[in-house]
Amino acid sequence: MTTLQINGYVPSRLDPRRAAELRPEVEHFNIEYCAVLDSGQVEDWPRFFTEDCIYRITARENAQLGLPVGLVYAEGRMMLQDRAVAIARTQMFAPRTMVHILGPARVLAEEGTDILAQCNFILLQTLVEGPTTLHLAGTYYDRLRRTAEGLLLQERQVIYESSIIANDLVYPV
Amino acid sequence: MTTLQINGYVPSRLDPRRAAELRPEVEHFNIEYCAVLDSGQVEDWPRFFTEDCIYRITARENAQLGLPVGLVYAEGRMMLQDRAVAIARTQMFAPRTMVHILGPARVLAEEGTDILAQCNFILLQTLVEGPTTLHLAGTYYDRLRRTAEGLLLQERQVIYESSIIANDLVYPV
Amino acid sequence: MTTLQINGYVPSRLDPRRAAELRPEVEHFNIEYCAVLDSGQVEDWPRFFTEDCIYRITARENAQLGLPVGLVYAEGRMMLQDRAVAIARTQMFAPRTMVHILGPARVLAEEGTDILAQCNFILLQTLVEGPTTLHLAGTYYDRLRRTAEGLLLQERQVIYESSIIANDLVYPV
Repeated sequence: MTTLQINGYVPSRLDPRRAAELRPEVEHFNIEYCAVLDSGQVEDWPRFFTEDCIYRITARENAQLGLPVGLVYAEGRMMLQDRAVAIARTQMFAPRTMVHILGPARVLAEEGTDILAQCNFILLQTLVEGPTTLHLAGTYYDRLRRTAEGLLLQERQVIYESSIIANDLVYPV
Repeated sequence: MTTLQINGYVPSRLDPRRAAELRPEVEHFNIEYCAVLDSGQVEDWPRFFTEDCIYRITARENAQLGLPVGLVYAEGRMMLQDRAVAIARTQMFAPRTMVHILGPARVLAEEGTDILAQCNFILLQTLVEGPTTLHLAGTYYDRLRRTAEGLLLQERQVIYESSIIANDLVYPV
Repeated sequence: MTTLQINGYVPSRLDPRRAAELRPEVEHFNIEYCAVLDSGQVEDWPRFFTEDCIYRITARENAQLGLPVGLVYAEGRMMLQDRAVAIARTQMFAPRTMVHILGPARVLAEEGTDILAQCNFILLQTLVEGPTTLHLAGTYYDRLRRTAEGLLLQERQVIYESSIIANDLVYPV
């Protein structure tokens, strides 16, 4: 279901020099990805993925137990597009703003045209006339692929920390 | 009132290579800016701005409605200096510490000697003998100018997330 | 007790170009350090320190008063190893997950084979079946040393913000 190790410590297979070379490129990708989501352009979100992508949001607890059940699971850019359209319509009823705070990216390995990377993040959510709350915190586990369209996510496993989560998690992370 | 687009998604006008070249320089600037504020050296804060600068703190909600009203608005380094002196004196009565957590900078464009950039941040505040709280989260929208004194802010629009904010926001962000 | 200035604003002694060169290396170190702690591999934590290291966790308030008392104080990699083993056993009784969100590193100076650097961080903690909470926020004040084993911490002073802290702080930061 995933080709990534989303659990435990995975030592980097790159020498620090090569990791440092790739890090700005990976971070640039993540910055643009989050800028699109933070500005509410959710219809624009699927363009960061390959046609045959995997996208999943899973609680750390489940990931650690090896349970493949996820809060969100999507295969292929088409499914992400369906989801994005659905959310764009739902959003109209409960407007909110999102801010991602990204830590630095951790670049782990190169496999052919792919880059394996991780990134810790915090996602803050603000409902209109409500307070700002910590919506989600966790780690991106990514397989990025070099394509003719530039770097794209062939796989993004979002592992989030809390075992309790609000029912309204529909927005991509 | 501002030359920056502080609302919605602004695509980067730089190719990723150039953005990656400029990012360390912009981040270096932001790191020093926050280090000064975090250490309580508020009198030192205006030196990060040009003489003719604009500095404003606005709620995201107001920014989205196109309302130019801000929590704080200052034009020119002199106004920042006045503010800094006032805060330095007020601080004596309610000591607190601040920590900024910066995300990576997003470099959007070059216009002559200017760099347009954004940066998400979290600002944590701790009152003496009190808990640490999320004071503010949001995005810096910046116009940085290359000058004889190095990179300076010609404009910083601080857009913060929450529509509810403590009354005591006086410290620069 | 420390060779580092852990209080107030310390201007960088490096020119921005040299700071920008060293920053990726320092950040790479911090990313790996936190990845080990976040994955619960606490026994692996002491390998980031020199044999003669100093490690201390102190409240900002105490640091500002010049009080050398710390929540945790360790001298030498051996003491860290003892601590790591003790925690690894204790952890079994209260499993939790940790996520560090690092800000960008601030590189201040080079002294022979040493690099002086700082880094703001947030540490989120999640107890099993509990919510995710802000466990600690603060700044790393570091003396990194170039050794045959690569970059290692000769000194890490963790200064945290809150004056109130849960009794259960045992996990390294």
